[in-house]
Amino acid sequence: MTGSSIGSNFKVTTWGESHGPAIGAVVQGCPPNLKLTEKDIQTEVDRRKPAKSSKISTTRREKDKVRILSGVFEGKTTGTPISIMVENKDVRSKDYKKIKNLYRPGHADLTYDLKYGIRDYRGGGRSSGRETLARVMAGAIAKKILKEKTKTEIFGYTTQVGDIQAQKFNKSYIEKNELRCADKEKYKEMMELVEKTHSEGDSLGSIIEITIKNPPKGLGEPVFNKLDAELAKAMMSIGAVKGIEIGSGFHSAEMKGSENNDQMHAKNGKIQALSNNCGGILGGISTGEDIVLRLAIKPVPSINKKLKTVTNKGKNATIQTLGRHDCCLAPRIIPVAESMAAIVLADMFL
Amino acid sequence: MTGSSIGSNFKVTTWGESHGPAIGAVVQGCPPNLKLTEKDIQTEVDRRKPAKSSKISTTRREKDKVRILSGVFEGKTTGTPISIMVENKDVRSKDYKKIKNLYRPGHADLTYDLKYGIRDYRGGGRSSGRETLARVMAGAIAKKILKEKTKTEIFGYTTQVGDIQAQKFNKSYIEKNELRCADKEKYKEMMELVEKTHSEGDSLGSIIEITIKNPPKGLGEPVFNKLDAELAKAMMSIGAVKGIEIGSGFHSAEMKGSENNDQMHAKNGKIQALSNNCGGILGGISTGEDIVLRLAIKPVPSINKKLKTVTNKGKNATIQTLGRHDCCLAPRIIPVAESMAAIVLADMFL
Amino acid sequence: MTGSSIGSNFKVTTWGESHGPAIGAVVQGCPPNLKLTEKDIQTEVDRRKPAKSSKISTTRREKDKVRILSGVFEGKTTGTPISIMVENKDVRSKDYKKIKNLYRPGHADLTYDLKYGIRDYRGGGRSSGRETLARVMAGAIAKKILKEKTKTEIFGYTTQVGDIQAQKFNKSYIEKNELRCADKEKYKEMMELVEKTHSEGDSLGSIIEITIKNPPKGLGEPVFNKLDAELAKAMMSIGAVKGIEIGSGFHSAEMKGSENNDQMHAKNGKIQALSNNCGGILGGISTGEDIVLRLAIKPVPSINKKLKTVTNKGKNATIQTLGRHDCCLAPRIIPVAESMAAIVLADMFL
Amino acid sequence: MTGSSIGSNFKVTTWGESHGPAIGAVVQGCPPNLKLTEKDIQTEVDRRKPAKSSKISTTRREKDKVRILSGVFEGKTTGTPISIMVENKDVRSKDYKKIKNLYRPGHADLTYDLKYGIRDYRGGGRSSGRETLARVMAGAIAKKILKEKTKTEIFGYTTQVGDIQAQKFNKSYIEKNELRCADKEKYKEMMELVEKTHSEGDSLGSIIEITIKNPPKGLGEPVFNKLDAELAKAMMSIGAVKGIEIGSGFHSAEMKGSENNDQMHAKNGKIQALSNNCGGILGGISTGEDIVLRLAIKPVPSINKKLKTVTNKGKNATIQTLGRHDCCLAPRIIPVAESMAAIVLADMFL
Repeated sequence: MTGSSIGSNFKVTTWGESHGPAIGAVVQGCPPNLKLTEKDIQTEVDRRKPAKSSKISTTRREKDKVRILSGVFEGKTTGTPISIMVENKDVRSKDYKKIKNLYRPGHADLTYDLKYGIRDYRGGGRSSGRETLARVMAGAIAKKILKEKTKTEIFGYTTQVGDIQAQKFNKSYIEKNELRCADKEKYKEMMELVEKTHSEGDSLGSIIEITIKNPPKGLGEPVFNKLDAELAKAMMSIGAVKGIEIGSGFHSAEMKGSENNDQMHAKNGKIQALSNNCGGILGGISTGEDIVLRLAIKPVPSINKKLKTVTNKGKNATIQTLGRHDCCLAPRIIPVAESMAAIVLADMFL
Repeated sequence: MTGSSIGSNFKVTTWGESHGPAIGAVVQGCPPNLKLTEKDIQTEVDRRKPAKSSKISTTRREKDKVRILSGVFEGKTTGTPISIMVENKDVRSKDYKKIKNLYRPGHADLTYDLKYGIRDYRGGGRSSGRETLARVMAGAIAKKILKEKTKTEIFGYTTQVGDIQAQKFNKSYIEKNELRCADKEKYKEMMELVEKTHSEGDSLGSIIEITIKNPPKGLGEPVFNKLDAELAKAMMSIGAVKGIEIGSGFHSAEMKGSENNDQMHAKNGKIQALSNNCGGILGGISTGEDIVLRLAIKPVPSINKKLKTVTNKGKNATIQTLGRHDCCLAPRIIPVAESMAAIVLADMFL
Repeated sequence: MTGSSIGSNFKVTTWGESHGPAIGAVVQGCPPNLKLTEKDIQTEVDRRKPAKSSKISTTRREKDKVRILSGVFEGKTTGTPISIMVENKDVRSKDYKKIKNLYRPGHADLTYDLKYGIRDYRGGGRSSGRETLARVMAGAIAKKILKEKTKTEIFGYTTQVGDIQAQKFNKSYIEKNELRCADKEKYKEMMELVEKTHSEGDSLGSIIEITIKNPPKGLGEPVFNKLDAELAKAMMSIGAVKGIEIGSGFHSAEMKGSENNDQMHAKNGKIQALSNNCGGILGGISTGEDIVLRLAIKPVPSINKKLKTVTNKGKNATIQTLGRHDCCLAPRIIPVAESMAAIVLADMFL
Repeated sequence: MTGSSIGSNFKVTTWGESHGPAIGAVVQGCPPNLKLTEKDIQTEVDRRKPAKSSKISTTRREKDKVRILSGVFEGKTTGTPISIMVENKDVRSKDYKKIKNLYRPGHADLTYDLKYGIRDYRGGGRSSGRETLARVMAGAIAKKILKEKTKTEIFGYTTQVGDIQAQKFNKSYIEKNELRCADKEKYKEMMELVEKTHSEGDSLGSIIEITIKNPPKGLGEPVFNKLDAELAKAMMSIGAVKGIEIGSGFHSAEMKGSENNDQMHAKNGKIQALSNNCGGILGGISTGEDIVLRLAIKPVPSINKKLKTVTNKGKNATIQTLGRHDCCLAPRIIPVAESMAAIVLADMFL
């Protein structure tokens, strides 16, 4: 296993470090004759950019201009690998020199050193959240395939920030607010909490939900490559995700079989589930109902607070991160999680 | 993807249906010169057997006698594939004839038909929980490798049944009770609930926790094959699992960065974490601290209650499952989940 | 890499040692609803058995009775893994005790010890030609898929034994003679040579040719998984094969572009090649013309001649193999090579 | 399978079309802390460039300037994916417009259309020999790993052009002549033949030999991933290769077991083979002796002769290729074949 590839039939390989020359992905298995432009990908990449308000988000400002280097000819995919790249421009590596020998708590500094005996300490190198940019580029292609071939739509939204939970669901509101929350009133409360926490130099955890509308039926491979297993892997591979549940998830622990079983009903020969506790997947295979996932997102580890840590020589030290960072990852992780869902579904579908 | 294999360096392929002639696994990549007997595997297989009390468990009674067919010579592994098999003996396929055209709610009947257009309806065929027997056989080998090469120990226990949560942790009590609960008092409450629910013909959800003590440091492959991602996949591939969290998991949504970050301390040059909210994994790579996972287990779908369903011709019907079934899966899933953890770790380690 | 699996969509895993309890294969990815019986597989397995005449072949006489253990329900495949097995019965392990510390020239004894530090010395263990039995079982399924879905036929024949080359091609004669030679006259010469060499305790090399009639068009994946690349791998993975060529093969070294290029002609819009120097594959993708391969088979290394060798302690010694062995492998490798071709094509087709 | 990746532990993915913006590779699994510069890669890339003499080679003149975009930090590899790229500069796509609807004999035009229904007709697109540039870049890294970790050296040379065979072997002469022939006298004959054939607008086939000196012992995975099987696949995946043999190869068909078996001898406990008919591989595993391969290279299909062909609408036509082409591929394929050998060995070694 070498780690930077996912998928079999729709196979994505990503590369690049936070402060290296560029970040990119190679996508294999995209069907030929699909219309594809740099703009299709740019649109999704732009959704991943930090919020404009510096009150809640990093001030690193990358243009993230997408280039397609192969696999597309005269505006159509040819079936050969699609190489996509953005260059890193707004790089301030100096900021990191002073922490090059410190292990930042909550980051992968310690473990990369354990594993590799060397690390690119600039902005987390390969372990940086910036790596997810490559996932979004690949995900944009996967989304396009799903939309054109199966009319599948994937969208995410923030359901909890700190201890504030969304209660209403207004889909059209999601992309209109900086937290991608579907509940206008709760959004305001969440935003106040984010601004307050950010000003205190701290950060917040959150929960996001991903809905996959109109998924193809019959996707998923028993036994080990169940659709929910592959989705769990894909989601858990996003750095800040610490939990995933599907359908009634952890709540199903408190349910009885008679409540949790989704009874079925046929109307004009068409089978419909009377509830969706299974989250659209039974026995690892999609039923055709909505697939619903929830992800637990840990608070951003880079905070402006003094914390105990150690040096790479095993000496005690303290650290306080003054760099450019987000306070709550939910809104920026949403396009990444959508992309991972799209990559898994496209892979299973093709 | 063809679904019945997991792992790259330690690669497990399972086969077999609930009511077919046999269930088996082929294990590739086991290191040579490891002492291995059928008894090593039998011990774990026996832990997966149903509880003796018919008050809470299926009355299907299989001997599950393990045979090693290859890969072991004069009591030692040779490095070649290990084929392991148990024959199915206590098969009552007739019980299933009457439901062959019905889709059981909460089961994979519908989705297998969607995907394959054919299914072995006897006891769920390939989608049966009995398939996990093969995982336990392979897991027994993985456990042995980990124990011998890295002194890693993996054990699970039930932390919640219905709405009753364990509160104490007495490790030595786990294997002494039928629910594998580490809290003696709560065990009694749980057991009462199980018996009551079973007598009502219903079933219960639960939560189990898996602890991996003394894992090798530096395991896991960024970006997509993170250790937590592979564990999430492996766990979610177990039929009844609907959620997985690691470390502080969903609770981290309500934490601040200053709380959730695991600060570090060095003592005699040895680095120790002051907390373990990350659950032993940072950036997808093991820190060497305990790895802690929690799994949400849905209630057994086969219940003795009349439920609405449909036939494979799309007609409305009702169903009531009178077969031999468990009420709460937690204690039997524990050896399966331990096995999956062992398989993932052995694969990453080798 | 763990070595005993081949294929992605049609995935074959084999297991078993020459003198262990059994030999088997697990086949993943076989489409559902294919009629499949043990007899379908038995027929191919029987073609691999040694010649009846002890003048040219081993006298080990296994019944090789095929059992299907999973994946088939009521005479049809279900899409789940097919586990197939034969038990080893005519095992004379004692014959091998005296050579357990000697490295037989031309065998894998030395290299298995180098790699694993242990080996099952009985009959070559895993490196025995008996392992190919599992390939033939899996190949029988692949052949059936190809025959039913694409009317593809695969057959092999011996074109050279020692220095005697076949000159005529009579397809119907192939399965009527013990060498699977398509030239009746040359068969007689070959047979005389085989008997003479066998009586001298020596063995013979040979060349076989595999023809794939009516292959699906458009099979093969540029760049690394070209159809010819996958066929080359599959064929070279057969123990005794030391060379493979496709189409004009090594002869193309002496050709000019103007001779070697297969010119094309259209008739009623249907494209036909005017020659087939490319062997049915261009750019790694099948053209639809016959695919033609030739394989160089080395002489059987087990011979009744005294040879210089060494012990596993690095001492000089001599060895003379008195066991039960073939003289010329060509006729028995043919069904194996056909099987490997079928496995590759089925994998690419599915 | 998606075709543009090879390897498991050392995994290479290539991308790019002959006349697209760039050609590149992503290399996963390179060990950390290996010194690596763009110059290391440039040196090998330069060896693949066409001969200076336009009498025998294409006049396309690319600078092929190598850029490393990730995976290297302060001159050392970090263990993360290495992305390498060269831009295409000397592109004359217009030359190809007139043949966009014609299928060039001996090329993949027909088969790409069969498979994908679309193709980038400019210079063969993805099927162009220019794709091998990416292999050479990745191979340079593999060579460096092998050299530093195992002192393994890989080199190739031309043994036959048309019907002229080399007879002597002077290693130091190989890189001093435009055909990479190790026999000075035969080189002159070969060169005359090449110039004559090129002036006639025709092309020549050839044979090259690859020697791997001092390979690690014990490499290769029985059963399907034998070292020779993986080498055969890797070599046959090079466009123009139509045959591969190892050790005595096709010649072994005419040998007896008593001749072909490599007898062994021990000296001071060290085991040596008395011959190397097996080509350094027994049972698919390296013995430690030299690994010796021979490849049949077909004549370049692009020739300045009028040939019969068809259009993509199935009409008869003629074609005469006037572009910039090589006459004999042997010298340029040598670094490619060396690279493929290095990639396979590095993959097996890591």
